[in-house]
Amino acid sequence: MTMYKEQLLPIEKVFRDPVHNYIHVQHQVILDLINAKEFQRLRRIKQLGTTSYTFHGAEHTRFAHSLGVYEITRRICDIFARNFSIEKIGPGGWDENERLVALCAALLHDLGHGPFSHTFEHIFATDHEAITVEIITSPETEIFQILNQVEAGFPEKVASVITHEYPNPQVVQMISSQIDADRMDYLLRDAYFTGTEYGTFDLTRILRVIRPYEGGIAFSYSGMHAVEDYIVSRYQMYVQVYFHKVSRSMEVMLEHLLDRAHELYQETPEIFALHSQLLVPFLRGQFTLADYLKLDDGVLTTYFIQWAEESDRLLSDLAKRWLHRKPLKSATFDEDRQLPLIEELKLLVEKAGFDPTYYTAINSSYDLPYDFYRPKSGVHRTQIELQQNDGTLIELSQVSQLVAAIAGEITVDHRFYFPKEMIDRDRSANYDLFSETYQEFTAHIHNGALI
Amino acid sequence: MTMYKEQLLPIEKVFRDPVHNYIHVQHQVILDLINAKEFQRLRRIKQLGTTSYTFHGAEHTRFAHSLGVYEITRRICDIFARNFSIEKIGPGGWDENERLVALCAALLHDLGHGPFSHTFEHIFATDHEAITVEIITSPETEIFQILNQVEAGFPEKVASVITHEYPNPQVVQMISSQIDADRMDYLLRDAYFTGTEYGTFDLTRILRVIRPYEGGIAFSYSGMHAVEDYIVSRYQMYVQVYFHKVSRSMEVMLEHLLDRAHELYQETPEIFALHSQLLVPFLRGQFTLADYLKLDDGVLTTYFIQWAEESDRLLSDLAKRWLHRKPLKSATFDEDRQLPLIEELKLLVEKAGFDPTYYTAINSSYDLPYDFYRPKSGVHRTQIELQQNDGTLIELSQVSQLVAAIAGEITVDHRFYFPKEMIDRDRSANYDLFSETYQEFTAHIHNGALI
Amino acid sequence: MTMYKEQLLPIEKVFRDPVHNYIHVQHQVILDLINAKEFQRLRRIKQLGTTSYTFHGAEHTRFAHSLGVYEITRRICDIFARNFSIEKIGPGGWDENERLVALCAALLHDLGHGPFSHTFEHIFATDHEAITVEIITSPETEIFQILNQVEAGFPEKVASVITHEYPNPQVVQMISSQIDADRMDYLLRDAYFTGTEYGTFDLTRILRVIRPYEGGIAFSYSGMHAVEDYIVSRYQMYVQVYFHKVSRSMEVMLEHLLDRAHELYQETPEIFALHSQLLVPFLRGQFTLADYLKLDDGVLTTYFIQWAEESDRLLSDLAKRWLHRKPLKSATFDEDRQLPLIEELKLLVEKAGFDPTYYTAINSSYDLPYDFYRPKSGVHRTQIELQQNDGTLIELSQVSQLVAAIAGEITVDHRFYFPKEMIDRDRSANYDLFSETYQEFTAHIHNGALI
Amino acid sequence: MTMYKEQLLPIEKVFRDPVHNYIHVQHQVILDLINAKEFQRLRRIKQLGTTSYTFHGAEHTRFAHSLGVYEITRRICDIFARNFSIEKIGPGGWDENERLVALCAALLHDLGHGPFSHTFEHIFATDHEAITVEIITSPETEIFQILNQVEAGFPEKVASVITHEYPNPQVVQMISSQIDADRMDYLLRDAYFTGTEYGTFDLTRILRVIRPYEGGIAFSYSGMHAVEDYIVSRYQMYVQVYFHKVSRSMEVMLEHLLDRAHELYQETPEIFALHSQLLVPFLRGQFTLADYLKLDDGVLTTYFIQWAEESDRLLSDLAKRWLHRKPLKSATFDEDRQLPLIEELKLLVEKAGFDPTYYTAINSSYDLPYDFYRPKSGVHRTQIELQQNDGTLIELSQVSQLVAAIAGEITVDHRFYFPKEMIDRDRSANYDLFSETYQEFTAHIHNGALI
Repeated sequence: MTMYKEQLLPIEKVFRDPVHNYIHVQHQVILDLINAKEFQRLRRIKQLGTTSYTFHGAEHTRFAHSLGVYEITRRICDIFARNFSIEKIGPGGWDENERLVALCAALLHDLGHGPFSHTFEHIFATDHEAITVEIITSPETEIFQILNQVEAGFPEKVASVITHEYPNPQVVQMISSQIDADRMDYLLRDAYFTGTEYGTFDLTRILRVIRPYEGGIAFSYSGMHAVEDYIVSRYQMYVQVYFHKVSRSMEVMLEHLLDRAHELYQETPEIFALHSQLLVPFLRGQFTLADYLKLDDGVLTTYFIQWAEESDRLLSDLAKRWLHRKPLKSATFDEDRQLPLIEELKLLVEKAGFDPTYYTAINSSYDLPYDFYRPKSGVHRTQIELQQNDGTLIELSQVSQLVAAIAGEITVDHRFYFPKEMIDRDRSANYDLFSETYQEFTAHIHNGALI
Repeated sequence: MTMYKEQLLPIEKVFRDPVHNYIHVQHQVILDLINAKEFQRLRRIKQLGTTSYTFHGAEHTRFAHSLGVYEITRRICDIFARNFSIEKIGPGGWDENERLVALCAALLHDLGHGPFSHTFEHIFATDHEAITVEIITSPETEIFQILNQVEAGFPEKVASVITHEYPNPQVVQMISSQIDADRMDYLLRDAYFTGTEYGTFDLTRILRVIRPYEGGIAFSYSGMHAVEDYIVSRYQMYVQVYFHKVSRSMEVMLEHLLDRAHELYQETPEIFALHSQLLVPFLRGQFTLADYLKLDDGVLTTYFIQWAEESDRLLSDLAKRWLHRKPLKSATFDEDRQLPLIEELKLLVEKAGFDPTYYTAINSSYDLPYDFYRPKSGVHRTQIELQQNDGTLIELSQVSQLVAAIAGEITVDHRFYFPKEMIDRDRSANYDLFSETYQEFTAHIHNGALI
Repeated sequence: MTMYKEQLLPIEKVFRDPVHNYIHVQHQVILDLINAKEFQRLRRIKQLGTTSYTFHGAEHTRFAHSLGVYEITRRICDIFARNFSIEKIGPGGWDENERLVALCAALLHDLGHGPFSHTFEHIFATDHEAITVEIITSPETEIFQILNQVEAGFPEKVASVITHEYPNPQVVQMISSQIDADRMDYLLRDAYFTGTEYGTFDLTRILRVIRPYEGGIAFSYSGMHAVEDYIVSRYQMYVQVYFHKVSRSMEVMLEHLLDRAHELYQETPEIFALHSQLLVPFLRGQFTLADYLKLDDGVLTTYFIQWAEESDRLLSDLAKRWLHRKPLKSATFDEDRQLPLIEELKLLVEKAGFDPTYYTAINSSYDLPYDFYRPKSGVHRTQIELQQNDGTLIELSQVSQLVAAIAGEITVDHRFYFPKEMIDRDRSANYDLFSETYQEFTAHIHNGALI
Repeated sequence: MTMYKEQLLPIEKVFRDPVHNYIHVQHQVILDLINAKEFQRLRRIKQLGTTSYTFHGAEHTRFAHSLGVYEITRRICDIFARNFSIEKIGPGGWDENERLVALCAALLHDLGHGPFSHTFEHIFATDHEAITVEIITSPETEIFQILNQVEAGFPEKVASVITHEYPNPQVVQMISSQIDADRMDYLLRDAYFTGTEYGTFDLTRILRVIRPYEGGIAFSYSGMHAVEDYIVSRYQMYVQVYFHKVSRSMEVMLEHLLDRAHELYQETPEIFALHSQLLVPFLRGQFTLADYLKLDDGVLTTYFIQWAEESDRLLSDLAKRWLHRKPLKSATFDEDRQLPLIEELKLLVEKAGFDPTYYTAINSSYDLPYDFYRPKSGVHRTQIELQQNDGTLIELSQVSQLVAAIAGEITVDHRFYFPKEMIDRDRSANYDLFSETYQEFTAHIHNGALI
């Protein structure tokens, strides 16, 4: 009788996927993991949170993304097995025994994501990576039970890939490095569902030049431009999609809304007990894994619908603005010089009748598009290595002008957020009373920046 | 001062759309309608309901679809205005004064959709088309207020397009006929998001051959094959996506789940008052438009998460099966011959411990891919007309062999649904006790059909 | 030492291909065949002959198509080897020893095509299939020498696949049947390069459902709609691209031009000896394989450029019309009724100053989109079989309404071609003299058909 | 009666195009130009010359590209007319009277291209731009006659756009600048037909942000990343497609082949008179426009087929290598240091039996991906300007890190070409005799570069 870990489906099962065409499932283990209830929950968590408020196609879920990361990993394993197996090329080659742990880690790496990830984590002090590990290693979950059936200790092995502690760097870098299955899937998927073309790079070409070596994963030197193109696409997605000012505005409002609820709970917990039961453990600051697994994007939104009718003016107004998509407006500013000006502007906002704590915000986006190893910096990212004909490695930014231009440089976008009413003359209910404040405020904004 | 109805945005506003590339908004009225809260709600209603359980990419919303229908209508108006204006070609030409009413009707035609449309409507006796009309014509809605600002009576005018009572057949057929902007958008959009290619037809070519005439909308004879290809694509989407047995299984379960809740509410209304407040008006059978507008897919799912923990075994089990995606299995059957057999099979299901009322179902899918006018049948669809060089019209199925093959024929798929446990030996908890029933049941299924 | 037939390239070689993304070459034999001079000649033969005069993107070559057919065959072999090897499933399974002969036959099946295939064949009585076999089996060719190095008799084995005499029906049907690698590649490729979408079907899905059986190749019953979609796409490509009236007009003119040259050669061979040397063996009616292999599309066109300056008025005028793309016009007609009318029209054409032999033509396009086995008809095509769960086969048109609608029906388009001058009033040099003939002629054409 | 220049087609005519979907022709003038024989000749000139030897899909022609440039220009005119007409926005706005001259110049800008452009020009001292102007302004051409019918002097006006002498910088920059309709079409078209994705940028987005100003054409600041993406795509196409070492090898061989013919003509002109008549005027160094217009890719290749059989060993061998695609191999080198080494290597090539004049070459590719205005350099390119909300302009590389990284930097690739036999042990006929030379030569090549 075949052991569970080696049990292959008699007929390969597929999931139709717009990005990879088909997701191919060959192991019973993988199929069981997909059918586990903790994995099915990911259908109810959007991949891009508030981005769908800017790009209306971006409703895709963590479920779809997780299948995609699994599929890319599976394809890499196939290529490694065919061309670079350890039996064939010796040390530095791929050990086919690593396949299952790699596939499981790829599939499960995002399991702990909650609703509106970063915002929620920030307000309620949760940590999706720690929760991922917890789901994988807690005996009560279906995920644990499936993995444990593979062999004792297997859940911990899968978790160690996710925490970067797994000994084989090839497996770790497949799932997590500057060019891994996770990033490759999300760039292609987010580009597809937003309808932008910036994130499109040539995955088949990358897969043609990827290869294992003793220190992890490298790329054939001849594929340098394919890798370069991936880095540039990633950069473009950050500045144009992930940093989009309107999505960030919706995040800012979500944060203020949850903040207000948190604050209000201290005063009047009973109103939340009435209609926001699933959120109460988090408002109270005591929650179990089971509590966490009941949350999703729709649960929070359901509560917002009810908050919109609450008597607390702030809670109600913020909930309505969020539900009806009324984002704050914004302008860029210079962090070194203009913080005092922002304080002045907040006073004007207050004068116009808006509590600046809830109706203004500073929000900064950061990304490091690519980095090489710098012993003295705090950053220790796995750099991207290109392998020459003779086997020697060269770090990517050494040979790519384009990558060198953005390597090690943090891309930042600082924005000050404020109510649309401050600059929208027609919309101000009582413009006459308000005209002086309006003129003072708008005088400080030119070409989209504070002046 | 420009009247509101003629107010054009100084700079055209666009929404990035994966299907049409850009949605172009030129009128202030249209922008205001999109920003109205009743329209924003459509972001929280999936276009395809339970289909995302089969095709994981299909998370797209009624919001996106509504923008798409608007955009196709806008492009048709542009083509009509450029080439076939009534000033230019006389009677049968396009009257540019109809543009705004057409655009508004296109944008708003799905406004009344609720969560999981047909299932919900069936259980709670709502009607999305009537509600669409109600939203458009009720003075309390933002939509009404915007439309009424265009001119008195304009909301009713827009509503009359949706109810097919508007006098100009060109406008009505643009939004609703056998080849209209609604169908063209959903076929392309559903194909894109499911990742199937069946729904793909050549929209630009259809738009090249579309033309107005006195009786409505026709297509140039030279574009016959483009129209034919659209009909075939539509047929393929129905049989392969919309009729998919797994999506229908999830619908069946949803129906049983809501049914059980409805029933239980009669006995113990208090448990729903505790955690399913927004649904109570519907369980009780008395709801207002405001109640309706608070519902969305996420609200229902939030309640299902709570029902999963209720003490009623049926409610809890059905909720879990739905949340964790455990569809019923199915087999096709012959409606004329096999209804008695189904009664027998239900007894076996009962013997195996499942209440057949909640764990079995008969579900039939019907579609009429295309029909021509048949005075004696009850059906009076607007047939598709091709216009020859000399202006005369020919009905499509007269000249297309492919369309003739499926015209007037209702495509049906009858299925009997039952628990997976009935045919899944490994999964049956106590196979020994159960083996006889199992063998009797499985003996009646061969090549996916009852025998 | 590895035998030549088993010699795999150390690193797989790829060709970038717009249709299949990459063509993967793994055997030294295949790489050598591609580099053989007889195969490189295919770069100079267009896949679609005169179609590029209608669809200007359609400049793709027999070289690209041949690589594509090879690639699809390679993918089928991979799938068969992985899932349906004879070791695994027994009789009816795939024997991996057949791979190389299948790949070679796929790659080489079009080797004998000459310039403007059918027209040239018709005038000069050549036969591209016979020449393909000759190239493969003649000791003087590079192709033969490479194949013969595999093993003695291998060239004949490859040739026998092309002539359908090879014993294994799986190999024969892979290359030649109603749904083979040849047709699948040309539909996708012609759709891509013409820029039409009609030929697009879902190749990956077809490959998912293809399977070997003892009688050849079948498709899983669950993939019925994918196969149906392929048949419909093929039908659409025929009626819209391959039968296009303008491409056929250019073929008609090419035929008349070569005819005139053939005729003229009998009278004055010396003018062709001066500038059309490579064509002389064919005009004379005695040619060797080496003569044939020197011809390509460009050679003929070079001679047309020179013929345009010859003193023979007919040769010169036809050459110019061809080079400068001045197609004849056409109208459809009813073969049973209207042949006498055509004779009348030819007289009018003659009256207008055009020799009807060279300036008019009857041209009919035929295609049989799909056929099943009919013992009494002359046609014995391999019908498309669907395989049910229990292994039994059903013929496609038994279950597909769409396929049934076009199965066994020959699609025909009869056209009468004549000079544009006959219906183009503005272009007629001396309309006054000509007006009566013009009016008589045009009175017989209505809605694009003869009346 | 409508003047010819204003004559619009009653029904817009379209050409199906894989890149732009449809090319829309609205003016009778444009249709007549497309049908002119000098324009039809472009069907027989490949856009990318020898690149199809590397990317087998790249068979597309100057004809298709010219239609594409016309179509992009037409779309720009439409956008300018709708949003930025001079009547609407005053000075700096678009004058609709410029449309026809812009469209004609766009369509005709490549009219003078000959076979294998740059190589041919180099050997025979022709100049395609001068010939373009000559075709447009010579009374004997059909093109001239059509343009002159628009109005006297119109041909010269169109020609002046091509020579950059036309007074309106908007029209000139539309056709010729660092981001013009010409470049935008060839990047997209070459990417499509080669099957690479590097050249893909978002044309619709560029067209959304393009706008006229007094100094020419600018782009909205908000579209900075779209323009940046175009520059990066262009850079990628250069380094990966246009600079491809194999295509350049084929160019090198073509140059040597034509060189040898040129040389041989001085000695034995009679052999060319026999079979290469159309080339004789060029070999002789005296040709007319009519001679030039008879040449195309196929004419040259026809002669190569005949040269392959000539008794001159060099001419014959080079012709065969070209026809059968036997490229020279290459290695990169350092121009400053390694020229002496190359002289040594040439001696080894000679020792191995190959004349270094014909069997080796130095070939360098240069491109300046983008440049800004630098008063002191010789280069005066029109820099790309971004327009801010307040109307002020900023040069692109001031705000784009990626563009700054490649701006003003010439990308170079120096390669030394030599016979494959020098490094291909298996292929060397007499390796024993040759082994010492082989070892000496190969010792100087490492990781694809000379050492």
